[in-house]
Amino acid sequence: MLETNLERIKRNLETLSTFNSTPNEGCTRLSFSREHRQALEFLTATCTSLGLDVAIDPVGNFRAKLKGSVPGVPAVMCGSHIDTVLHGGKFDGAAGVIAALEALTVIKEQNVSLKHPLELIAFVEEEGASFGGGLVGSKALVGQYTVNDLMKIVNDEGISFYEEAKRFGLNPDELENYVIKRGDIKAFIELHIEQGNVLYTKSIPIGVVEAIVGIRQLSVTLTGVANHAGTTPMNLRRDALAAASKVISFIEHCAKHEAFDTTVATVGKIHCFPNVTNVIPGKVIFSVDIRDIRDEGILKVEQLISEEVRRISSEYGLQYSINLVGDSKPVKLSEEVISVIQRTAEEARVKYLKMHSGAGHDSAILTEVTDVGMIFVPSIEGISHAPDEDTSFEDLKRGCDILVNSLVKLAQ
Amino acid sequence: MLETNLERIKRNLETLSTFNSTPNEGCTRLSFSREHRQALEFLTATCTSLGLDVAIDPVGNFRAKLKGSVPGVPAVMCGSHIDTVLHGGKFDGAAGVIAALEALTVIKEQNVSLKHPLELIAFVEEEGASFGGGLVGSKALVGQYTVNDLMKIVNDEGISFYEEAKRFGLNPDELENYVIKRGDIKAFIELHIEQGNVLYTKSIPIGVVEAIVGIRQLSVTLTGVANHAGTTPMNLRRDALAAASKVISFIEHCAKHEAFDTTVATVGKIHCFPNVTNVIPGKVIFSVDIRDIRDEGILKVEQLISEEVRRISSEYGLQYSINLVGDSKPVKLSEEVISVIQRTAEEARVKYLKMHSGAGHDSAILTEVTDVGMIFVPSIEGISHAPDEDTSFEDLKRGCDILVNSLVKLAQ
Repeated sequence: MLETNLERIKRNLETLSTFNSTPNEGCTRLSFSREHRQALEFLTATCTSLGLDVAIDPVGNFRAKLKGSVPGVPAVMCGSHIDTVLHGGKFDGAAGVIAALEALTVIKEQNVSLKHPLELIAFVEEEGASFGGGLVGSKALVGQYTVNDLMKIVNDEGISFYEEAKRFGLNPDELENYVIKRGDIKAFIELHIEQGNVLYTKSIPIGVVEAIVGIRQLSVTLTGVANHAGTTPMNLRRDALAAASKVISFIEHCAKHEAFDTTVATVGKIHCFPNVTNVIPGKVIFSVDIRDIRDEGILKVEQLISEEVRRISSEYGLQYSINLVGDSKPVKLSEEVISVIQRTAEEARVKYLKMHSGAGHDSAILTEVTDVGMIFVPSIEGISHAPDEDTSFEDLKRGCDILVNSLVKLAQ
Repeated sequence: MLETNLERIKRNLETLSTFNSTPNEGCTRLSFSREHRQALEFLTATCTSLGLDVAIDPVGNFRAKLKGSVPGVPAVMCGSHIDTVLHGGKFDGAAGVIAALEALTVIKEQNVSLKHPLELIAFVEEEGASFGGGLVGSKALVGQYTVNDLMKIVNDEGISFYEEAKRFGLNPDELENYVIKRGDIKAFIELHIEQGNVLYTKSIPIGVVEAIVGIRQLSVTLTGVANHAGTTPMNLRRDALAAASKVISFIEHCAKHEAFDTTVATVGKIHCFPNVTNVIPGKVIFSVDIRDIRDEGILKVEQLISEEVRRISSEYGLQYSINLVGDSKPVKLSEEVISVIQRTAEEARVKYLKMHSGAGHDSAILTEVTDVGMIFVPSIEGISHAPDEDTSFEDLKRGCDILVNSLVKLAQ
């Protein structure tokens, strides 16, 4: 079995984490920023010196290829994303990119001869921190987003992904020539931190992901009548917050009792207008995030929420709207890749847990065109998307070992 | 019976409304602003030309006195406040100041001889738009606030009322010499717009206020644990917003079913942290505003809310705190002054309604030192604290007629 290099993993991950626009306040590396460019330059220099063929695709995905021994066969791909949320951690995404880099480095160093090429990818804009929604790099790569779509995806200043990519020196008009179709890639493996506390709590170093949840995000608006909190009797009120509170309680109840064990639903964001102590709220907007590995769970909760919003709005004399903000279907990962990862872990005598991913990943998008597997490493205390996000380098190194030996199995 | 002058009332009110820092976006006249100074200059000029004795007290209350025929007897006072909320209307407060000015003008014009002096007052900082809480001018006038208190009342920039008053050219250190004690004033009448829609809906032009609600304002903080909306199972969550929603629903239920017909309770303001779609809320802060003309109603609702906050926090594994932000007791107005206003309305053959005030007023503070009455005039559609706030000048004139003739009865 091949073994990866703990010190090199640590050094490379720390280097990547210095490309950070918020030092001492977590890690922030937004797409098309100065830090994004520095990270691409670092990967380019490192991969070039390894003798890999380096390319940055028309939307900004970084790709580096190690040739195989047989011409014309598809590559086995590995990697993760290179962007972060605002004030996030240094492992989310970066761990998978550095793991892929380490895997290719070890294979190159050890002169392991493989039939299939290996390809590292560092996806652009997975988090959606700049262009809400996220997964832009992988969606463009598999053809889910066209050039036209990229023109419609805008940041907070109203500037499109397309324009920002051009400004960054890319040529998004050429996207079509870079799209991956089924057959182009033999398999894809993403190593990622778990971002939950299942592995950490159970002290298991490796998660083998079987499925990635689907996510349905709604924005609910309830409109009543703002009025004086002192001069309006209780029975003449059309209080949007009192109504919203009933709906929010119901959403929690639904996810707990009306669907599956795997179903979760969250109201994370609420805005109240005018939001003044002595004024009855006239309008409330809140988000709903529903997730499950079974689409029936998501659809059932969504339907129950819709009915309750209608019922409560009628009871309170409100107008309402429910808008779909985001939607991704649950996906099952490849049984073949899963079994390769499992076998590798067993050979390495590393304990693993078969589990599902409650967070969305580029991997889910890649299932459209290839066989996909994911390796999770533990998040300390389950913390992620925060400056305190952490993973032990020993655990990350174990994940890299499983990754490189799984890649070898798939590529030989 | 004396009759007031519709055109003059309208002209004076319109003039006062031009001292406004947000023209075309409602009326904004904050304490110690340029517009406040302009308003004081206008009142000073107008009252001086009427031959009244004008003074601005150490906290900024404007006072103008018309001598009576008997020396040494206490004055009958009338007036309201001169400040507004942000983007408020031109009638709230101003209507009562202009009504008082009109009353003194008519009495002076008609050479009505009265035993007692009459005094107009335009209170400073009733709304609390600059120095949260409000009623500062009246509380200082009756000795509820000392110079020391004025140093502790701060605006959003952390500058105290005391400092701002000094900067405005006042000498708050002299407050003690201006405090009114019981016996100093024979009676006080405030004319004010209703700010609710009772009079407007019933097409009754005059409200005779019998009681002013007490107001208890709380700030409730629930602290749970922010976590990933996808990777945290429902049964491991400590969701501050799900918990807050249950409490908010309960507050509405309490005010509707657990206290009196006159009890109202409102959650008008809510802040959720970090307020992100895919993060379980870790902290929620919300306001509670409880009002009633019976203190038992307020205290009962407050106690039930406290118990529910404790119960829900324990159920959800949260920490909580409940802070008292504002507190005023319900007050009954003077039966003698009420009967004078009623008799005057009956003589004038103007329909009136005995009612309570759901909003707080300087009048409530004045009950500590004198007999108080309030005259309400209708708010069109019940709208107030908004640019659309409106009252017909015919209704306002009727209110002024009742005011001046009530003052004559009290002062003769």
